[in-house]
Amino acid sequence: MQPSELSLVAASDAIRQRRLSPVELVDSVLDRVTEVEPQLGAYVTAVAEQARRSAIAAEREAASGRFRGLLHGIPMGLKDLIDVAGLPTTASSQVRAGHRADSDSTVAARLAAAGAVLVGKTHTHEFAYGLTTPQTRNARDRGRVAGGSSGGSAVAVAAGTATFALGTDTGGSIRVPAALNGVVGLKPTYGLVPRHGVTSLSWSLDHVGPLTRTVADAAVVLSALAGHDPRDPASLPVPAEDYGPGTDGSGATSADLTGVRVGVPRNYYFDHVDPQVETAVRRAIDRLETLGARLVEVEIPMTRYIRATQWGLMVPEATAYHERTLRAMPDLYGADVRILLEAGELMPAGDYLRAQRARTLMRQEWARLLEQVDVIAAPTVPTTAVPADQETVTWSDGTVESVSDAYVRLSAPANITGVPSLSVPVGHDGAGMPIGMQLLGRGLGEAVLLRVGHAYELSVADVAPVRTGATKAKDSL
Amino acid sequence: MQPSELSLVAASDAIRQRRLSPVELVDSVLDRVTEVEPQLGAYVTAVAEQARRSAIAAEREAASGRFRGLLHGIPMGLKDLIDVAGLPTTASSQVRAGHRADSDSTVAARLAAAGAVLVGKTHTHEFAYGLTTPQTRNARDRGRVAGGSSGGSAVAVAAGTATFALGTDTGGSIRVPAALNGVVGLKPTYGLVPRHGVTSLSWSLDHVGPLTRTVADAAVVLSALAGHDPRDPASLPVPAEDYGPGTDGSGATSADLTGVRVGVPRNYYFDHVDPQVETAVRRAIDRLETLGARLVEVEIPMTRYIRATQWGLMVPEATAYHERTLRAMPDLYGADVRILLEAGELMPAGDYLRAQRARTLMRQEWARLLEQVDVIAAPTVPTTAVPADQETVTWSDGTVESVSDAYVRLSAPANITGVPSLSVPVGHDGAGMPIGMQLLGRGLGEAVLLRVGHAYELSVADVAPVRTGATKAKDSL
Repeated sequence: MQPSELSLVAASDAIRQRRLSPVELVDSVLDRVTEVEPQLGAYVTAVAEQARRSAIAAEREAASGRFRGLLHGIPMGLKDLIDVAGLPTTASSQVRAGHRADSDSTVAARLAAAGAVLVGKTHTHEFAYGLTTPQTRNARDRGRVAGGSSGGSAVAVAAGTATFALGTDTGGSIRVPAALNGVVGLKPTYGLVPRHGVTSLSWSLDHVGPLTRTVADAAVVLSALAGHDPRDPASLPVPAEDYGPGTDGSGATSADLTGVRVGVPRNYYFDHVDPQVETAVRRAIDRLETLGARLVEVEIPMTRYIRATQWGLMVPEATAYHERTLRAMPDLYGADVRILLEAGELMPAGDYLRAQRARTLMRQEWARLLEQVDVIAAPTVPTTAVPADQETVTWSDGTVESVSDAYVRLSAPANITGVPSLSVPVGHDGAGMPIGMQLLGRGLGEAVLLRVGHAYELSVADVAPVRTGATKAKDSL
Repeated sequence: MQPSELSLVAASDAIRQRRLSPVELVDSVLDRVTEVEPQLGAYVTAVAEQARRSAIAAEREAASGRFRGLLHGIPMGLKDLIDVAGLPTTASSQVRAGHRADSDSTVAARLAAAGAVLVGKTHTHEFAYGLTTPQTRNARDRGRVAGGSSGGSAVAVAAGTATFALGTDTGGSIRVPAALNGVVGLKPTYGLVPRHGVTSLSWSLDHVGPLTRTVADAAVVLSALAGHDPRDPASLPVPAEDYGPGTDGSGATSADLTGVRVGVPRNYYFDHVDPQVETAVRRAIDRLETLGARLVEVEIPMTRYIRATQWGLMVPEATAYHERTLRAMPDLYGADVRILLEAGELMPAGDYLRAQRARTLMRQEWARLLEQVDVIAAPTVPTTAVPADQETVTWSDGTVESVSDAYVRLSAPANITGVPSLSVPVGHDGAGMPIGMQLLGRGLGEAVLLRVGHAYELSVADVAPVRTGATKAKDSL
């Protein structure tokens, strides 16, 4: 196994035990970039030289006994909506030509302080306003979509060109590409991870979070990201917390889920879902039951309002953010994004307010729902990665849905309500394309989601072993 | 002095010491209703019989040694937007014909539990959407406006037909009529007093608060109103607090303001202000200095955005609230309110979002401003009560302003930013019409506002003595 293929936790263990140096790890990842990036297009910019310098510095620190923590020397990709001082934040858009960030975003600063090494900035669907990321190809099949908008981040993690990455999620943009490329994606609770220095799509729905190879990795990255920053007006005044499995004394590194109530939706989440996706997710849910969880059938509330609420909030907020550039340089936007932004100019305030009020009610209803169960398990997306030129999905009852509507449909409720959602790989379809299951939890209930996701991973024989302290004997290094 | 003329604190002292019975007090107030209500029109409904029954019950409780606190047996008026179980909440509108509240609003329930006795429901400008309350006449001059929208509440307190009253304040609707009728009005911090069961005008700007004869009275009522209620989504999770002067051990019943920094605006608050109003307010500010306060000149931020932000938030939110009835029965609204509601249907979402974003920035700027000083002192309204048929105000530079715009201009910043604002009477103009000074403070800084306002009152020889424990020897009862 190449160092570029290691999980974050495995690589971190190896670095701490001096079996692997940050320079070896970063070089391995950069070699992989050279090898596969021309076919994948995951990166807008790779900063190889800067990464090597950072790796050397990390190695010197390690040699002198200074170890910044689990992210020390770990290579990462940052979605190109996330400011890094001195680099452009292109948002994968011509509108941002000549841009240069003066200072780090909160998340970039926190990860740098934790010792992570930037490999480069990853492609996003232009300004995060879409679900496919056309510049990037799926990590498993280059003829298929990467998913979006954090397509570059998901593909980089899946393809070994970053050990972890950050994405943003306004309607599913972390979880959708995670599911379509077979990696883990976590959209945290609204307000848990500060967005200062991150380009906005829709401020009341935007989240920043990790894409990783394992749930344990996601817990490590979240621990570095979370915590209050007053520069994001929506940032929650909660203290930083360690989400790492095994750190809470609850036996979280074991696969025992006794006492955990898992909600299984009887409506919405299994409607218009590909049978292979449904089968894989239901099998994963059954596995949670064999681990001790109690399955509870639940009714998802207010489902007929989900789509109108998501769009009613997102469209006018996105247009407000782009107001000036849309007037000054409309031709520099891609056609799909421009038409959405222009549509936002025509929306009446009443529609936005109806969406805000529906959200308030949905939050209340979901809070009530999440008193009955600890997590809800459901498909992340209703279908696997479609061919790059496919624009619609046709369901067995003849219903036709746009690819974007299909991909956002099951992930949007967590954006509207702000509850955390974790997507974990649960198998593949007949074409070998990955399938994702999402676990939704209570506001600030990340620890429970990570525990359940981690237990699932530990229990599954046919996935790569999770390289925590408990399993490191299996490491091939 | 009739019992109906007593301040709340004085009446409460007298009841506790058995010098006055709740029945005597309520009868005195009801007599006053009979005497002056035909000329004033402060009440939509007076509930004399119910008030007498409550007074008898309060008297029995007192006789048996059960004393619910400072509001025990105190007669009150509630603005007719505030639900009281079994009574209609007319909002002074034909739209509400046949209405009947099934249960108490949070504030009505809290005041009833504290022993207050409902005299009746007071007139509001229709659905609180205006600054004059045309059904009601000014307590000092029946040819002049009462101010609004809590005009009935202010007039009732000024005229002796309620010992205290509640109002609501979306752009100044507690403080404007308080200033115009010579009583105290407090708009608390946004979210401090729950609005469950109170008809909404604009949910992001609406507040409930007391109108009283003295600042000490306002502190007593606020103590009964404040505290979290999850049924109002904006309710702050703060514990109930006792705001009564003298309860905090800080010497708040004295008039010593040593160490308090009072901000005096160099812009905005004294522009286009009647010279008599300016003179009275500056004299009151000078008095704060003689009490030991340090005056600090301050610059009010973002003043050119105040009007657009207030209207940009209020108009679409009001229309959203009235959406169904505006379609079903447009003719039942008054012409002035209907035109505002219909204008809201035409507003683009972008204008609302611009107002929301401006508010976010204004909140930040005001928070910074209020680090420099403890309170800001300014006129409540730029002119005293105008004749009922006057529609505009002409300033010395020839500028013409609608009466509504003038009355809302200086009070709106506290609604946009959510900071508390207390209006206290500071004299009269040449026609004998009252002048109000507002004190603005930090979010949840009510205690400081009340301390400064109370010190001012204690220091002023020509106002009725404040009947706290410290001064009760002066009571005439």
